[in-house]
Amino acid sequence: MNGAESLVRTLVASGVEVCFTNPGTSEMHFVAALDKIEGMRCVLGLFEGVVTGAADGYYRMAGKPAATLLHLGPGLGNGLANLHNAKKARSGIVNIVGEHASYHIRHDAPLTSDIEGVARPMSDWVRTSWSARDVATDGARAVEAARTAPGRIATLILPADTAWNEADGPAVARAAAPRTAVSADAVKAAAAALKGPNAALLLGGAGVHAPALEWAGRIAAATGCRIISEYNSARIERGAGRVIAHRIPYVVDAALAFLADLRSVVLAGARPPVSFFAYPGKPSLQAPTACGFTRLAGVEDDITGALEALADELGARTTAPAQLARLEPPAVPTGKLTQEGIAAVLGALLPEGAIVVDESVSTGRGFAALTTNAQPHDWLCVMGGAIGFALPAAVGAAVACPDRKVIALEGDGSGMYTLQAMWTMARENLDVTVIVFANRSYNILRGELANVGAGAPGRRATDMLTLDRPDLDWCALARGQGLEAARAATLDELAHALGRALARRGPGLIELVM
Amino acid sequence: MNGAESLVRTLVASGVEVCFTNPGTSEMHFVAALDKIEGMRCVLGLFEGVVTGAADGYYRMAGKPAATLLHLGPGLGNGLANLHNAKKARSGIVNIVGEHASYHIRHDAPLTSDIEGVARPMSDWVRTSWSARDVATDGARAVEAARTAPGRIATLILPADTAWNEADGPAVARAAAPRTAVSADAVKAAAAALKGPNAALLLGGAGVHAPALEWAGRIAAATGCRIISEYNSARIERGAGRVIAHRIPYVVDAALAFLADLRSVVLAGARPPVSFFAYPGKPSLQAPTACGFTRLAGVEDDITGALEALADELGARTTAPAQLARLEPPAVPTGKLTQEGIAAVLGALLPEGAIVVDESVSTGRGFAALTTNAQPHDWLCVMGGAIGFALPAAVGAAVACPDRKVIALEGDGSGMYTLQAMWTMARENLDVTVIVFANRSYNILRGELANVGAGAPGRRATDMLTLDRPDLDWCALARGQGLEAARAATLDELAHALGRALARRGPGLIELVM
Repeated sequence: MNGAESLVRTLVASGVEVCFTNPGTSEMHFVAALDKIEGMRCVLGLFEGVVTGAADGYYRMAGKPAATLLHLGPGLGNGLANLHNAKKARSGIVNIVGEHASYHIRHDAPLTSDIEGVARPMSDWVRTSWSARDVATDGARAVEAARTAPGRIATLILPADTAWNEADGPAVARAAAPRTAVSADAVKAAAAALKGPNAALLLGGAGVHAPALEWAGRIAAATGCRIISEYNSARIERGAGRVIAHRIPYVVDAALAFLADLRSVVLAGARPPVSFFAYPGKPSLQAPTACGFTRLAGVEDDITGALEALADELGARTTAPAQLARLEPPAVPTGKLTQEGIAAVLGALLPEGAIVVDESVSTGRGFAALTTNAQPHDWLCVMGGAIGFALPAAVGAAVACPDRKVIALEGDGSGMYTLQAMWTMARENLDVTVIVFANRSYNILRGELANVGAGAPGRRATDMLTLDRPDLDWCALARGQGLEAARAATLDELAHALGRALARRGPGLIELVM
Repeated sequence: MNGAESLVRTLVASGVEVCFTNPGTSEMHFVAALDKIEGMRCVLGLFEGVVTGAADGYYRMAGKPAATLLHLGPGLGNGLANLHNAKKARSGIVNIVGEHASYHIRHDAPLTSDIEGVARPMSDWVRTSWSARDVATDGARAVEAARTAPGRIATLILPADTAWNEADGPAVARAAAPRTAVSADAVKAAAAALKGPNAALLLGGAGVHAPALEWAGRIAAATGCRIISEYNSARIERGAGRVIAHRIPYVVDAALAFLADLRSVVLAGARPPVSFFAYPGKPSLQAPTACGFTRLAGVEDDITGALEALADELGARTTAPAQLARLEPPAVPTGKLTQEGIAAVLGALLPEGAIVVDESVSTGRGFAALTTNAQPHDWLCVMGGAIGFALPAAVGAAVACPDRKVIALEGDGSGMYTLQAMWTMARENLDVTVIVFANRSYNILRGELANVGAGAPGRRATDMLTLDRPDLDWCALARGQGLEAARAATLDELAHALGRALARRGPGLIELVM
């Protein structure tokens, strides 16, 4: 077998079942190997940002890495923004990046670039496999790196001659090490920290999955502490029957107010809260200076086990959890589009097991409250702040969970970054409903311009913050890629369109004209 | 004035007139400065690949750098592929990349990344401006770097506090040094090399602009040498009245045959020809081993002056140029769509001064012959092999040359990479006609799969090389972004649609159903 076959067999033997791809010439042997070898589902994206964002969404839902296939430095470059998001989400991904044949690199052909240099900023692990004899082992190491808790970006660069030369193999990745249990001292310290007044348990990573949240609810019942979560979570399990973790707000002043009374925060998979951006005269760190932090568990540790131990330490193993959401979805509202109204429609109609991929940016900031008591669902946020996340991540989530409804909440500005994801939804007939909040602007930036003290926008600034002249026709952009599409300008129309979309299988788009 | 104003004033004072932008929060002071200060045209792109590709197209036509405005590491990452193309094209660009406030970086907020690391592989010059007092000087140095012959990618990273703190300034970039004249010895050696049998003059860079070509034609008339050009040229001036430089073919076997008889090649702005990719059993270097190379001028040198000196050395200053194209456009053909027929329609209808931005990939390989005798025009190729070039570059070319017709020849696979460029065409009412060759596949890869010896594609490989199921509706994708659009399935329909598009002002798209 050649190197490419050796690598594909290694990935399959190591449990990698999906490859999101956008190949070029240098990857043709890998493509041929995917063709021959059973066990790998290949999903084509028409742009690499779709490919890497899909791998992020897949990891968050499947809990294991997918592979990507990317074309040299520029193809990897196109995928960097969503690799950045994935890295910040602690998702595991195995990138396979084609390279020129080793002897061809020195000739500086047009596509030659420093691929390792492009990879490094958004990868946790980078290696070039210079020999076909090594590629199986290198592939196994890449899978092991990607699976290292809580998840890492591994980039394996595959020169064309490594792919086509005769190889041994395959190899098999070693099983991932179990997550580290936290020390008894850390548990004791956390228990002491929560017993005082004005305490909170700040959850991140696996700390916002249902099992961890249930322990957190017991801890809160025993101590009276608040349960809060970082502004964004890679995947939070929420809705009826789950313990509520209140999000720290995005806007700095709101975050400062939200945290103002705290004197003691126990961190479980989270870090002390930091502002998304710096603003003149406002602090980077959001907690009051009087607030102490106690680290129970890092994001890579066994967070659920740590919370269970903490509940035990507090004698709360069988205590009924506090902050439990009951099934009280809001009534379906009617009338004009408002942020609260949209949230209520979502809260009322989200089906059990729905996966919400949230890149609603400014429109969605208030969605949490009115969806808390919806049917139980998962909610995925963009973790690295790079827009163009939701449509690709929805692809990956739908590939990982074919029996669940995926709802992508998308701004028009952010949606345009990776709109090509819609074509993949159509080709794979993924059960994704895209809701685009078409406010015809980078609305978040209007607020930011004011927040940084840069004054009111004039003509040129306004031109750079608006997406009008011409207005984008999202229904045309969706239909042009094979999706059903509908426009909604009122809450009634939204509820009708969303109800229809959820009642059938397959991808569709709703353009909400704000 | 603050640092952002200092920087904008420096750019304007240094002759930078256009800023292609996609800003975020960290760039809001720069946006506010653009708002206040006259002299900079701001052009918004809805994706950073549009922004950087537009700056490349602008440089090629304007002969001077534009600025770009990009949002931190991920925004720069999205622009990398077209920066790669621009770097290989030797275009000059000044990238301004926002960064967190210097004191905020250590808190590792979601958008934090190693921006210099992201910049380095696709930049010739990288600097972070850590102080508002330095930013004017740093900005001037960036412009100087970008203008260094033949053109360089300069990336200046602008922390938010550098933008908002009090600054001095502005500074002004020093004028670019004139291009280096080549030595008399180099001219003599080139003259000797061309006097032998089976000689060729291989042109690149400014060597394929009309003044240089005219000298090349005189040299060919005096020596009998062939005039050839690299497979791709950043901008070749061609058509009636110009000297013809024959392109080295893309396909390796065709290139080997094209060069097989050569014994002596003089390089003027070009390098010895190298295959785009390596293939098993085929050489990287395309010239026969018996062929000698003589370097007359590097791409950074005064190529036109070198050719003039060479013509003088050969006593050919007043010789009538050989290989001159006469105005003999082909007749407008009718009937079925063929590659030759499409080329003939283009050759017949290209108006004088047209700018053709060519990313026609496999469809366009034969376009050269039947457009040689068209009205004089410029032809721009993708230089780094990263697809997604033509639509953005057409934006930049149209901004640089508002009185000329721009025609973008685009594959469907490559067009999807940066289709957001169409919105910018609509907003700026750019006079661009996009022709999409909709063959529903990455057609080039079908050939490449065979060329690398990877065999015939099976089901999974075919799925990764095709853009069908569903077919993209390019007219919908164009109309959804505010462009007029028409579909053509015959040569008659193409000629009709292209004639209509060229008769009016403003952007439009023609989907050629192959």
